[in-house]
Amino acid sequence: MSLLFAILFSIFISLLAFGFAGWLYLWVKKQDSSNPKIHSISELIRSGANTFLRKEYIILAKFAGVVAILILLFLPAPIWHGNWVENVTMTIAYLSGTVFSAFAGKIGIFVATIANKKTAEAAQKGIRPSFLSGFRGGAVMGMAVVGSSLLGVALVFYITNNPTMILGFSFGASSLALFAKAGGGIFTKTADISADLVGKVELGIAEDDPRNPAVIADNVGDNVGDVAGMGADLFDSHVASMAAALVIGSAVDMIVGDSRFTVMVFAYAAIGLLASIIGVANARMGKKGNPTKALNSSTYITTALFTALTALATWIFNFEWRIYFASIVGLLVGVIVGIATDYFTDDSKKPVQNTARASESGPALTIISGVSYGFLSVLPAMVGIAFSAFIAYKIAAPLGTATGNEVEFALFGISMAAVGMLSIVGMIISNDAYGPIVDNARGLAEMGNLGEEVIAITDALDSAGNTVKAVTKGFAIGAAGLTVISLLGAFITEVNSAIIERGLSDPLIQGFDIMNPAVFFGLLIGAAVPAVFSALLMLGVNRNAERMVAEIHRQFETIPGLKEGKEGVMPESDKCIEIATNGALKELIPAGLFAIIITIVVGFVGGVYAIGGFLAGNIVSGLLLALFMSNSGGLWDNSKKYVESGHNGGKGSETHKAAVVGDTVGDPFKDTAGPSINTQITVVSLIASLLSVIFLMYHIF
Amino acid sequence: MSLLFAILFSIFISLLAFGFAGWLYLWVKKQDSSNPKIHSISELIRSGANTFLRKEYIILAKFAGVVAILILLFLPAPIWHGNWVENVTMTIAYLSGTVFSAFAGKIGIFVATIANKKTAEAAQKGIRPSFLSGFRGGAVMGMAVVGSSLLGVALVFYITNNPTMILGFSFGASSLALFAKAGGGIFTKTADISADLVGKVELGIAEDDPRNPAVIADNVGDNVGDVAGMGADLFDSHVASMAAALVIGSAVDMIVGDSRFTVMVFAYAAIGLLASIIGVANARMGKKGNPTKALNSSTYITTALFTALTALATWIFNFEWRIYFASIVGLLVGVIVGIATDYFTDDSKKPVQNTARASESGPALTIISGVSYGFLSVLPAMVGIAFSAFIAYKIAAPLGTATGNEVEFALFGISMAAVGMLSIVGMIISNDAYGPIVDNARGLAEMGNLGEEVIAITDALDSAGNTVKAVTKGFAIGAAGLTVISLLGAFITEVNSAIIERGLSDPLIQGFDIMNPAVFFGLLIGAAVPAVFSALLMLGVNRNAERMVAEIHRQFETIPGLKEGKEGVMPESDKCIEIATNGALKELIPAGLFAIIITIVVGFVGGVYAIGGFLAGNIVSGLLLALFMSNSGGLWDNSKKYVESGHNGGKGSETHKAAVVGDTVGDPFKDTAGPSINTQITVVSLIASLLSVIFLMYHIF
Repeated sequence: MSLLFAILFSIFISLLAFGFAGWLYLWVKKQDSSNPKIHSISELIRSGANTFLRKEYIILAKFAGVVAILILLFLPAPIWHGNWVENVTMTIAYLSGTVFSAFAGKIGIFVATIANKKTAEAAQKGIRPSFLSGFRGGAVMGMAVVGSSLLGVALVFYITNNPTMILGFSFGASSLALFAKAGGGIFTKTADISADLVGKVELGIAEDDPRNPAVIADNVGDNVGDVAGMGADLFDSHVASMAAALVIGSAVDMIVGDSRFTVMVFAYAAIGLLASIIGVANARMGKKGNPTKALNSSTYITTALFTALTALATWIFNFEWRIYFASIVGLLVGVIVGIATDYFTDDSKKPVQNTARASESGPALTIISGVSYGFLSVLPAMVGIAFSAFIAYKIAAPLGTATGNEVEFALFGISMAAVGMLSIVGMIISNDAYGPIVDNARGLAEMGNLGEEVIAITDALDSAGNTVKAVTKGFAIGAAGLTVISLLGAFITEVNSAIIERGLSDPLIQGFDIMNPAVFFGLLIGAAVPAVFSALLMLGVNRNAERMVAEIHRQFETIPGLKEGKEGVMPESDKCIEIATNGALKELIPAGLFAIIITIVVGFVGGVYAIGGFLAGNIVSGLLLALFMSNSGGLWDNSKKYVESGHNGGKGSETHKAAVVGDTVGDPFKDTAGPSINTQITVVSLIASLLSVIFLMYHIF
Repeated sequence: MSLLFAILFSIFISLLAFGFAGWLYLWVKKQDSSNPKIHSISELIRSGANTFLRKEYIILAKFAGVVAILILLFLPAPIWHGNWVENVTMTIAYLSGTVFSAFAGKIGIFVATIANKKTAEAAQKGIRPSFLSGFRGGAVMGMAVVGSSLLGVALVFYITNNPTMILGFSFGASSLALFAKAGGGIFTKTADISADLVGKVELGIAEDDPRNPAVIADNVGDNVGDVAGMGADLFDSHVASMAAALVIGSAVDMIVGDSRFTVMVFAYAAIGLLASIIGVANARMGKKGNPTKALNSSTYITTALFTALTALATWIFNFEWRIYFASIVGLLVGVIVGIATDYFTDDSKKPVQNTARASESGPALTIISGVSYGFLSVLPAMVGIAFSAFIAYKIAAPLGTATGNEVEFALFGISMAAVGMLSIVGMIISNDAYGPIVDNARGLAEMGNLGEEVIAITDALDSAGNTVKAVTKGFAIGAAGLTVISLLGAFITEVNSAIIERGLSDPLIQGFDIMNPAVFFGLLIGAAVPAVFSALLMLGVNRNAERMVAEIHRQFETIPGLKEGKEGVMPESDKCIEIATNGALKELIPAGLFAIIITIVVGFVGGVYAIGGFLAGNIVSGLLLALFMSNSGGLWDNSKKYVESGHNGGKGSETHKAAVVGDTVGDPFKDTAGPSINTQITVVSLIASLLSVIFLMYHIF
């Protein structure tokens, strides 16, 4: 397969994904929606989400503008040292990355805020049509994200033929994702926590009670956090995995003298998207009406298709089988991480049940239990990622034995393991975006008085969304782990090629020795970063939630008839949306800037060796904390649901109250801090790679 | 200074410490204690503590017996490969380590359980005599621990003249500490949590209300956890820091051809103990009666004395000034870590106050806030340790420039930074052991009806203990961090000398490259270990607390008149002590074994490179989690006290209830898991060093 053909094939498949997304959108749009009350509430959600997105994008545009100017001046090398054409190209690549990412997020919100009401109304006809509305609405996002990612990478590579520019594109995607995920995460959890604290805990009213002023904001949050934010996050991971594979792939291509490894990257990524398209098209609920099964079965179809089609392609086009197996190892580990996550968050297993039992002795034991199981849950995933990197390395290394380039090939193997793991990301995003849509539908059904039966159906759909979400989150973290390991490889490749191309006097970097004090220095500081980053986000949620709780209290006290639920009295939902929006946009800045600035400081203090250690420390502690927070959050959520379903005292008992405390603590863990760490790791890795030449030239020690 | 003189000097100073401890003990013993009620309660505590200690030591003796047999067979090399005399010596060194550690713990408990009642009764005369009883009681422990440590190391070195045997001695100390800290930590927090959950939260009775069956167990717990367990922990750190410095020091001595660096290790350690003796002797409360100031001022005296006396010794005996400065850097970082910790746990600073304010919105925000600040708090300490290791390395490296041994000297510099940081450990233990003694005294004053005024005095003493404890805990963690970094250096030294001495064909280890897949593999798994270890301990506390809460409920329900406080009706405290004891001894096994076994498995799977990565991952994530848990625990504790002192609603308010939840969650964080991680890291490092030859010979990949 020629490189041109691979790129064109990738572009073709991404256009196919867009076409399919268009068809899905039209399908969702033509579903019934006649209920005026639901329509009006859904319009509130829609306009709230769009307002947030617009304000967020304005801030991000300013940020991106500043960064673009810095790139123009300094990257890939200071403009007075290098080639200004390269700097301009890099700037354009960077801006394209931000635009593609923003575009995908916008589409996701656009469709999700239509699909929610369709799903709610379809639930009146039964669970199967309702499921399909929710799933296909989410799938638009899945297709748009992966389509944009593949299209963007292919175009940038086609135009520039320079993998370093893909790093620029990827950095654009990442820097947008960093703020979109963090901002959306703060928004959604501010609203969720405040709504719960006042509604469920203080007043004892139902989840989506229309009297609660924060309920609309909570539903807006589902969209901006779990649809747009999550989409930006996985867009970022997908682009980053391709970027790392292309940087290292180009280096090994130079060794073998043709472009076969670059070709492989595009071929595999395109096949992954194709498999996702087929998987999504075949998602349908069986007669028994089990939505979890329906979601999982389409994932299995996608996985099996990817395994088979890449094998076929490898056979036909004579790709390296060793790389194929490295890629499949990545996919396998994704499954292991998913299963492990499932054990710790499944309500038929010990962790969730023991935590529910511990709640009988009050909220303190709920928290201790959840934290403990969260800590335990990191082991299988970390061991899985460790083994997969190790095995992918060992499988791929022999390809370089003849030429003495084992390390380069081994790193390429790891990067292809990441590509393999992320190959089915289109399917994963579809499943993920399904969650907030049915969650919204549940809210609409309750606020629109569609009746108990309809709410029960949306509840069942929602619960399946939560189960699947826990698993896909594990997948996303595992993928980020492997991606960043390969970004570390990309970093070395970049530094060394800079040394050679620019004729610098520094010795080539062979690796990062822990006993080198600069590396160890970076290792310790890098490990602290995800903790601090999470802390800043969660403190933001806390501060913001305090403001919103005060506002809800004010409304209940000053609006006559609101608490009593008097006919026609509506809460001032827009006030809550405004607080969530402004707070989120204000609070996301310190966390994002902290991560960026400390990377740059460490680079200037300790040079490339410190940065190598910094990245390693960041990956290790980032994986640890992301897994811990996502899993304990999911566990508390399900443990609360387990109690609500009648165990250990059931709804309204003291046990239930304790379980609700756990759930509330888990909210920012699993939906703000935990998943944002992924993005933080990627951003930091990309900054390091992009600034490698600068750090090489200027550093204190 | 000759080596013999340095060793004899060390032995002399440790005997001096024992003599001083004896004098302190006699002083404490001759203080008044005439109140029969206090005497009888104090006897209950004393016998409870001794029962626990006896049962614990029986289990540990069995464990040590098994390990001793394994050492005899396999260490330093399999007996059929090596020299049986070495194996016998190593076995004896190991057993001596366990015996010395157990002995120090036993002395500590012995004196603490006398000093508690003396302190309580002295409070009737005023705060100054009461302070002195508490402090001098704690100082016995401080002197005994450091005296035993220095004496043991000096004797083993004198007899064997082989630093590897010090590793064996250190391993004995560590393996005892691992279980003593974990077991004591589980005991104390089981009792504390259960007493609080039923007493404060459910029934709303005071902290040390004599009706509560768990109160005596809680006071026993202070002794077995915070006196014996903490003593074992710091004994372990002190021995380990000397062991690492002696291993690396011997290697650099070989380079220079005399024993001047080994001499320095002994001289500095002995001077540290001497400075602590003088500091303790001068601890006295000023006229204003501020106990925190009194504790801190004696620490300052010790620190200043150490700085001055080592400078003097360096000048007189012509030691290397570069090593002197490396050592002082360590001490300085200890201070920085201490100050940073103080900021996050001081109730006049934002973190504690914001957490108290967050508690107004319920326990969920208390937890989120505390976790967030706990995460933030890791940054200054990690950066401090990173810089100190970096600077110590850079200061010491030039000593090896002439002979091309920069790395060896640099590592010696780091190990001496750890020795410097731990030089004042005698003082730190004295301050630390003071805490549980005055805590006990407070309980005795309340249970013995000594009146409000006396309780207020013990409260003031207790509060100072908490403040100082938070700082010294930061110190201990920082010290463990530096120690383990130097143990990593000791590990390399051990492996390389084994390769040379035994004529193995393996290439010498230059370092651990993160890009080596075995190193990275180890790094990821090593990072997961402290999380899993903590989880197992905390789950143990949870399970045990559930059992004890059930028992307390049973007593309140079945013992007539207990709840009402009828004259003469006593709870069955011994039942609670029994539950705490048996539970702790049962639950400490899985955590300890997990840490030991996974190290061995990784070594056999990936060889010495995987172990190198494993140790690095373990240090990094261990520091992170230990700092996080200790600091957030301290923060919650003080935030609760802040509310109790009348802020944000004060005692009995909803805010207070939420703050109590935070405090309860913080209990196992700061007193079970957090500080046990130190020991876990040291044990794992020592196992790695001791088994290095075995891992070199037998590994799968």
